Amino acid sequence: MFNSILMEVAGLPIFGAALGAGVVALGAGLGIGKIGSSAMEAIARQPEAGSKIQTAMIIAAALIEGVSLFGVLICLIIATA
Amino acid sequence: MFNSILMEVAGLPIFGAALGAGVVALGAGLGIGKIGSSAMEAIARQPEAGSKIQTAMIIAAALIEGVSLFGVLICLIIATA
Amino acid sequence: MFNSILMEVAGLPIFGAALGAGVVALGAGLGIGKIGSSAMEAIARQPEAGSKIQTAMIIAAALIEGVSLFGVLICLIIATA
Amino acid sequence: MFNSILMEVAGLPIFGAALGAGVVALGAGLGIGKIGSSAMEAIARQPEAGSKIQTAMIIAAALIEGVSLFGVLICLIIATA
Amino acid sequence: MFNSILMEVAGLPIFGAALGAGVVALGAGLGIGKIGSSAMEAIARQPEAGSKIQTAMIIAAALIEGVSLFGVLICLIIATA
Repeated sequence: MFNSILMEVAGLPIFGAALGAGVVALGAGLGIGKIGSSAMEAIARQPEAGSKIQTAMIIAAALIEGVSLFGVLICLIIATA
Repeated sequence: MFNSILMEVAGLPIFGAALGAGVVALGAGLGIGKIGSSAMEAIARQPEAGSKIQTAMIIAAALIEGVSLFGVLICLIIATA
Repeated sequence: MFNSILMEVAGLPIFGAALGAGVVALGAGLGIGKIGSSAMEAIARQPEAGSKIQTAMIIAAALIEGVSLFGVLICLIIATA
Repeated sequence: MFNSILMEVAGLPIFGAALGAGVVALGAGLGIGKIGSSAMEAIARQPEAGSKIQTAMIIAAALIEGVSLFGVLICLIIATA
Repeated sequence: MFNSILMEVAGLPIFGAALGAGVVALGAGLGIGKIGSSAMEAIARQPEAGSKIQTAMIIAAALIEGVSLFGVLICLIIATA
């Protein structure tokens, strides 16, 4: 006897997409938050180095932004598929 | 014999959307909160660098805001689909 | 008696892809965030070493970015397969 | 009476591959992030030792990168098998 | 009447292999990250001992790398078996 059961839990991929988008944004928020926080303190300590610090801040934050937007894009693809 | 069972856990996608939106907001809140907090302390330490600090604060917070709004948008799409 | 049941939970791979993409971005965000944060403080402490620090920051962040983009790519392959 | 039930949950390996890729990248992000973070602070403390520190940073980060890329590769093999 | 049910969940070993590879890399990343982090700070404190510190760092990191590559290898064997 061979039984093949297709159990489709209907909302599972979309559940994952929503949860995934949340975790992506959590990572981006914590990461860019940490960078931004340090940038504030750094500019306060060395106001004359403000432009250097801001440039480095944007580069680092953009790297997080890049992988995060790619991550939420995948979640969007899954959610609307 | 072939059995196909569609088990639809009816609220699962919307549950995920709500949970995801929560996690997004958690990340954004913690991240922007960290940046804002440091900005306050930084301006207090160096009031004359206030405008520089505020510019950097807005840039960093806007990056978090961007990915977070994209994240909650996905959750909104899922919730209203 | 021998029973072979193929239970296919239809959305499971895609659920994993979404969740995986989230965890990848979480790691990238935390990691690059930590590097960026330290870079800010480092430039503030030694503004004249700013270019050295920024170079090292980009190298380290790029290593995280590399494995992260590879990770989300796998999730994308799974999601669209 | 002896019953042997082979229950195949069809999407389970691919679910694992996606989740595994996420955890690999999480580890790589946290690890390289820690190394990079310390490298920044180290270069700021001893700018004249910048090249030594950067060399050591790349060696340590490359070791993490190596095992991580091998890990995501396994996840890719599982996902596409 | 005596019923003995052997329930074999078919995809479970491969699921475990993928997740295991992830956890191996997580451990390696955290471990080598900690070693590398301390090495950076050590070289900054004693730049003239840089080569000694780097040698010790590579030995310690290589020990983690060794067991980690063995771990992901086992996961690969399970995944492709």
